[in-house]
Amino acid sequence: MLTFSLCCNTYCPSIFVNGSFYPAKAKSRRQRWEVKPSEMANNTFNPIRAIVDGMKLTPNPDKPMIALSIGDPTVFGNLPTDDAVLQAMKDAIDSQKYNGYAPSVGYLKSRQAVANFFSCPEAPLEAEDVILTSGCSQAIDLAISVLCNPGDNILVPCPGFSLYKTLAVSMGIEVKLYNLLPEKSWEVDLQHLESLIDERTSCLIVTNPSNPCGSVFNKEHLQKILKVASKHCVPILADEIYSDMVRTTNHPSMASLSSDVPILSCGGLAKRWLVPGWRMGWILIHDRNDIFGSQIRQGLVKLTQRILGACSIIQGALENILNNTPQSFYDNTISFLKSNSEICFNELSIIPGLNPVMPSGAMYLMVGINMDNFPDFKNDVEFTEQLVTEQSVFCLPATAFEYPNFFRIVVTLPEEMMVEACGRIREFCEQHGILHTKHAEP
Amino acid sequence: MLTFSLCCNTYCPSIFVNGSFYPAKAKSRRQRWEVKPSEMANNTFNPIRAIVDGMKLTPNPDKPMIALSIGDPTVFGNLPTDDAVLQAMKDAIDSQKYNGYAPSVGYLKSRQAVANFFSCPEAPLEAEDVILTSGCSQAIDLAISVLCNPGDNILVPCPGFSLYKTLAVSMGIEVKLYNLLPEKSWEVDLQHLESLIDERTSCLIVTNPSNPCGSVFNKEHLQKILKVASKHCVPILADEIYSDMVRTTNHPSMASLSSDVPILSCGGLAKRWLVPGWRMGWILIHDRNDIFGSQIRQGLVKLTQRILGACSIIQGALENILNNTPQSFYDNTISFLKSNSEICFNELSIIPGLNPVMPSGAMYLMVGINMDNFPDFKNDVEFTEQLVTEQSVFCLPATAFEYPNFFRIVVTLPEEMMVEACGRIREFCEQHGILHTKHAEP
Repeated sequence: MLTFSLCCNTYCPSIFVNGSFYPAKAKSRRQRWEVKPSEMANNTFNPIRAIVDGMKLTPNPDKPMIALSIGDPTVFGNLPTDDAVLQAMKDAIDSQKYNGYAPSVGYLKSRQAVANFFSCPEAPLEAEDVILTSGCSQAIDLAISVLCNPGDNILVPCPGFSLYKTLAVSMGIEVKLYNLLPEKSWEVDLQHLESLIDERTSCLIVTNPSNPCGSVFNKEHLQKILKVASKHCVPILADEIYSDMVRTTNHPSMASLSSDVPILSCGGLAKRWLVPGWRMGWILIHDRNDIFGSQIRQGLVKLTQRILGACSIIQGALENILNNTPQSFYDNTISFLKSNSEICFNELSIIPGLNPVMPSGAMYLMVGINMDNFPDFKNDVEFTEQLVTEQSVFCLPATAFEYPNFFRIVVTLPEEMMVEACGRIREFCEQHGILHTKHAEP
Repeated sequence: MLTFSLCCNTYCPSIFVNGSFYPAKAKSRRQRWEVKPSEMANNTFNPIRAIVDGMKLTPNPDKPMIALSIGDPTVFGNLPTDDAVLQAMKDAIDSQKYNGYAPSVGYLKSRQAVANFFSCPEAPLEAEDVILTSGCSQAIDLAISVLCNPGDNILVPCPGFSLYKTLAVSMGIEVKLYNLLPEKSWEVDLQHLESLIDERTSCLIVTNPSNPCGSVFNKEHLQKILKVASKHCVPILADEIYSDMVRTTNHPSMASLSSDVPILSCGGLAKRWLVPGWRMGWILIHDRNDIFGSQIRQGLVKLTQRILGACSIIQGALENILNNTPQSFYDNTISFLKSNSEICFNELSIIPGLNPVMPSGAMYLMVGINMDNFPDFKNDVEFTEQLVTEQSVFCLPATAFEYPNFFRIVVTLPEEMMVEACGRIREFCEQHGILHTKHAEP
């Protein structure tokens, strides 16, 4: 009777399978197709795409488009990587030694090469402190994944790189934004930072040098951030993908200043070696007080076994890339970015209603918009949209970084395009601004 | 009063921050360091590592080690990839066109090349049906991630590739193992498969050709699997990384037989092109009845934005790799694997107590152990452990695939090593077996 009634239940279409009786267990099964994306997919959200895809970006047909929006130094072709980098890759291919699976944490010799490259007396590194990843994005993903559970929160700079939020929210981790202060060259509002910490705070993300700000924290400021982390026992994820792409002399790494706070420093070849598409990243584990201990290390190792990391060819080339790239290559990039930043800053500084913040690292420059001066536009999104329509210049509205009424300029393009773009921005501001003379800004 | 009592609360060390008053809000914060790996890290578990790391693997010092355990065709150096593949890579590097970020789903022209390569009249593909990934592992990860929520279950072959379980369990997804039948060349026990389906079943994984079995399903059997999936409205993840590494003529792809069941077919360069370390994989979206619709496609796109996918150099080389690799390269690999499989099967078939199952694809062969014939050993783990100790031959115990009393042999090693290994296995079985003449096996 029971069996019969179960069989007739519309949620249990069959407990007789292939003509023979199978252990009677009531099962509700689908009667029709109903395939929906998972919550994780639904919750994976790229704020930049959300903003940009909603914009009407129709350039002026009379002016060639200049995109100052793309954080990829290779797009204009003026910043090729070094020949030594290309040669290292071709040697790795020819050797036929790197076609097989690498260990999930990377080849030992490649990890050793990274350790040697970044080790310093204040923050020594061994091969075992290095985990190779598929780009810095995977490094950040692994670091957040090992430190945070759903329901935890992480502290993220505002304005800041959107990926932290994309990753965290997709995993059910709360994002708390701490303010950076444009009037203090984008230093951290330490008071605000500290006010956000609670017992579910499992990670403080520090991006230095900063995307989108191009700022570089000095030693003293980094020490103050470390003090907050130390006081409240919050480990740090230091996103240092732009490390050494700086134009100051006082720019230590976070780990070199920490005596107790454990740090996962994330980096990669992308920016400094100008090959972001190659997806060669790493995590440097700094844990001089053994606070992470073996558990976090083992957790990271286990997580690397999910999909493995960087391409074995690039791993095989890594030692030669790090050792054979001449200093002049790095110097040339930095000097080019410095020159372009200065051009851009100087050109925009004299425009009424715009407040560029001089950067000292990375490859970006943030520009504040005094919206009162531009009554035609409600906000940075409308401002930058119309800038495309009229002048064919696209700057990323900083709403994409949750920082309205600023826009980000990428300074990797050729100098003549930089100058041209600044000229068009000036023309645009002259046409739409109500002030025509630069005031002292607050 | 309230403020005072909050300040004295040991869980709220400070609401005065940096000497100034901050909005009074009681916060419990950590007083001491307590950094623990996340549940996801703790739940990430590689069954193969768990088994192998627990084994005492001390080879006989008088015999050189022969590892028949590693599913990497490159380790013995006898199966290099084709020169056309290497040339395509070097051309991509020299072009300097592939240093920047690729779109998160891959370059359009590379997706088109994959679509062209795998398209057939019964299962046509366009570029938009292809998503490029960092190895087939990421393809599988994305496919599971988009289809399944925590609490859902997926159907996984037993014996089967351990990664499905590693990924699913780390995401809180239940794994239900359906049996393959060694006596039917590892076809699916359809009755068992169907009995496992319930309303939380969000994906059926079919590995064809099979790792670890080396079996290849024929058209009729694939149609029966599709019928079960269609009846209960369960989408299929077809792991086809070994597709076309087969030695039969009747081996259609799953998608070519499906008129309604939506299929995510996962594959990559790893096995057929003999470059598993390069991490070039893909998902082919087959959805002729528009059951996935745009939602699953968009979900996949969103998930690719978390860490991006394959190295841009390999993506840039992909079109030439697919178009320029000569047929003779594939044929040579298949013929080599066929010959080695036959040698191994024939040698082991005559050993009392062993029941090898003849494979017809991939690069594996499963061997049953009649444990009654080997009273010295409790199970496959002890058997294979002692085989290392005495004969320096390591086969992976199939307990690692949740299929005890079998072991898996990799048939990619040079012929003379294959013969030597089989000879040593025979010697080992003769010394430990109580039967010395081969019986008719059940």
